[in-house]
Amino acid sequence: MTDKTPKGPSRRAFLAGAAAAGTLAAPARAGDDPAISVQPWMQELGDGVDVAPYGVPSSFEADVKRRNVEWLTADPVSSINFTPIHALDGIITPNGLCFERHHAGVARVDPAQHRLMIHGLVDRPLVLTMQDLMRFPRENHVYFLECAANSGMEWRGAQLNGCQFTHGMIHNVMYTGIPLKLILEEAGINPSGKWLLAEGADAAAMTRSIPMEKALDDCLVAFKMNGEALRPEQGYPLRLVVPGWEGNMWIKWLRRLEVGDQPWHHREETSKYTDLLADGTARRFTWEMDAKSVITNPSPQAPITHGAGPTVLTGLAWSGRGTIPRVDVTLDGGVNWHAARMDGPSLPKSLHRFYFEFDWDGAPLLLQSRAHDSTGYVQPTKNALRAVRGVNSIYHNNGIQTWAVDAQGKAENVEIS
Amino acid sequence: MTDKTPKGPSRRAFLAGAAAAGTLAAPARAGDDPAISVQPWMQELGDGVDVAPYGVPSSFEADVKRRNVEWLTADPVSSINFTPIHALDGIITPNGLCFERHHAGVARVDPAQHRLMIHGLVDRPLVLTMQDLMRFPRENHVYFLECAANSGMEWRGAQLNGCQFTHGMIHNVMYTGIPLKLILEEAGINPSGKWLLAEGADAAAMTRSIPMEKALDDCLVAFKMNGEALRPEQGYPLRLVVPGWEGNMWIKWLRRLEVGDQPWHHREETSKYTDLLADGTARRFTWEMDAKSVITNPSPQAPITHGAGPTVLTGLAWSGRGTIPRVDVTLDGGVNWHAARMDGPSLPKSLHRFYFEFDWDGAPLLLQSRAHDSTGYVQPTKNALRAVRGVNSIYHNNGIQTWAVDAQGKAENVEIS
Repeated sequence: MTDKTPKGPSRRAFLAGAAAAGTLAAPARAGDDPAISVQPWMQELGDGVDVAPYGVPSSFEADVKRRNVEWLTADPVSSINFTPIHALDGIITPNGLCFERHHAGVARVDPAQHRLMIHGLVDRPLVLTMQDLMRFPRENHVYFLECAANSGMEWRGAQLNGCQFTHGMIHNVMYTGIPLKLILEEAGINPSGKWLLAEGADAAAMTRSIPMEKALDDCLVAFKMNGEALRPEQGYPLRLVVPGWEGNMWIKWLRRLEVGDQPWHHREETSKYTDLLADGTARRFTWEMDAKSVITNPSPQAPITHGAGPTVLTGLAWSGRGTIPRVDVTLDGGVNWHAARMDGPSLPKSLHRFYFEFDWDGAPLLLQSRAHDSTGYVQPTKNALRAVRGVNSIYHNNGIQTWAVDAQGKAENVEIS
Repeated sequence: MTDKTPKGPSRRAFLAGAAAAGTLAAPARAGDDPAISVQPWMQELGDGVDVAPYGVPSSFEADVKRRNVEWLTADPVSSINFTPIHALDGIITPNGLCFERHHAGVARVDPAQHRLMIHGLVDRPLVLTMQDLMRFPRENHVYFLECAANSGMEWRGAQLNGCQFTHGMIHNVMYTGIPLKLILEEAGINPSGKWLLAEGADAAAMTRSIPMEKALDDCLVAFKMNGEALRPEQGYPLRLVVPGWEGNMWIKWLRRLEVGDQPWHHREETSKYTDLLADGTARRFTWEMDAKSVITNPSPQAPITHGAGPTVLTGLAWSGRGTIPRVDVTLDGGVNWHAARMDGPSLPKSLHRFYFEFDWDGAPLLLQSRAHDSTGYVQPTKNALRAVRGVNSIYHNNGIQTWAVDAQGKAENVEIS
């Protein structure tokens, strides 16, 4: 591997690139060149279709969509699809593109009939309507939600060719919700109440045990995402938000909170969502999502199409433990590392956006990113994780991802030793 | 007007309210009461419809939509609709609910055919493709966009019964875009270049003059909103972002940037978007949006339906000059003012969310909010504005809004002297 020190952008760098891509130095007036002539859409009134009650994306963006992997589940009702992170930018995921995971399909809950029950080791059991909940104080926070199985296929090598599939079981929205602490305090927690069971109103009756310390810390009972009501597939009308912890705990269609003195050891924390190690034992209650990052462009679904010259590399980084003050990127498989430019608001337990602008010389690249979180933790290599945990698990793979870019700009998912 | 000091939330306050609203103290197990019995959606698999390429809101939320005012424009092609701010929370506006204003309908621009020309008093005229633009460094910022005519009908008294109509020509999203400064530097601005003309690719060929100082400060050439491509009605594939300045300047379907030595005095800065004063002269180039706020709940479209007791008041505040460190609210038409609780990230030139929780005694209320921005500016009364500017204008009304709430919780748009 040769030592390549990429050049950063300089005066005229972008123009040089533009020229390389075939752009014209323009005449001083529109109309002199076909490329800047008055297009059809300037010659007639646009339609009024988009003065519409609820807007939709441009038809030119039809390929920007959640994608399923057909062979991953037996039935689409209990399935998974993936956020097209290779086609997005910034840190907010639009609601229509947030990945989905259902264990018994999408429950269609009537909010007028929905109830939230709080019971168990409490002074006063409660049943709350949606209207009751609207009387509690609310907060707004941007949090990422990552499925514990995100990147799960990659434990045993480079499997899926595109960051939408390797890293797309994540989204990041602004939630409006009630601090769970306020609801629990309203019920009054007995001193022996150390655990909380949260249950969903779908046919899976999804349940997870949550330690009381986390429940009283930063959990929310949320009813809005990105300003509007939760989407049906995200738990409408109520979901639990468990910031920084694995997505399966963020119970959708939330109907019941039971306070107990020990965890319940239900299905989703025993046979599932535990990490089977090489020796046959399993790590349990591995709730926190470790710091992780991925380069979203260039990537297999988003190759370099403009040839050599000025190139924008970008990606996402996140940590369940805080913020991401720093991301390193390498163009040569780890021989040289460069500090990426962190952009946008840095919010705890939220996606962070990074960029790295460089002049591509047209030679093959081995791209990687490495996140550092605010606790000092550094994202490990996949091999470092495998050395400790083996390759049995499908959960909690936060290893460094590699994309190999060839001289034509095409990228693929590879592993390097 | 009597002096009412509202009680803030206290231990058991929310429960007391819940009990007043008819909620049950629950038995310890689900199934004992019809309200918490196992609902139909727990008894069968949900459907797989929502494992869908691009998701949509719940059918129970069909009333949360952009709304037109039929009589406001002659034709829906050149029309306006309004963001349903009474039904939203937090600070992000979902893309499907961002208000629209078109002067010649929605131009349907093919991004592969679209060009951005930079010419005039520049060293090197440029014509850039979308692909060329993707090679420039990008930034991400959350900014509000407010139409200069937002609240325009209210100059002559309380006209429209609902904050969606009085204040809904505003939205707030995260933009991904290129600093305009980088594009202008690429072209090289002549020393005599003091103004910029931005032109849209719609049939209105919308144009506005922008002083070079602003263009080089914080303007963006944006291509994404809330992570995904701009919506067609918001200028797909390219729009100018002019943070804190009136929405008409945020040229959609951006196709041309011309550098000049003086403003162009085009239609939209002479016959429109100027503020006609009482003496017949007009204020011109009134670009900055002054600090403003509105209570979104309770409001005419969002009455109090739960009776007396714990009540959440919430609203939005913003300033084109910076952040909003403080909002005051009054329940009694200005006799007593209380500091609202500011919530969510405080970002410059972005919406801010405020809350005020109080125990409603069931007596009529006169609700107002008053924003203070980071420059020390305080939102004025409508009458204070009228005293200086008269009532000829339809632009730049940032006066304090009043909602009268009756004993049944119904709210209406009123003015008090």
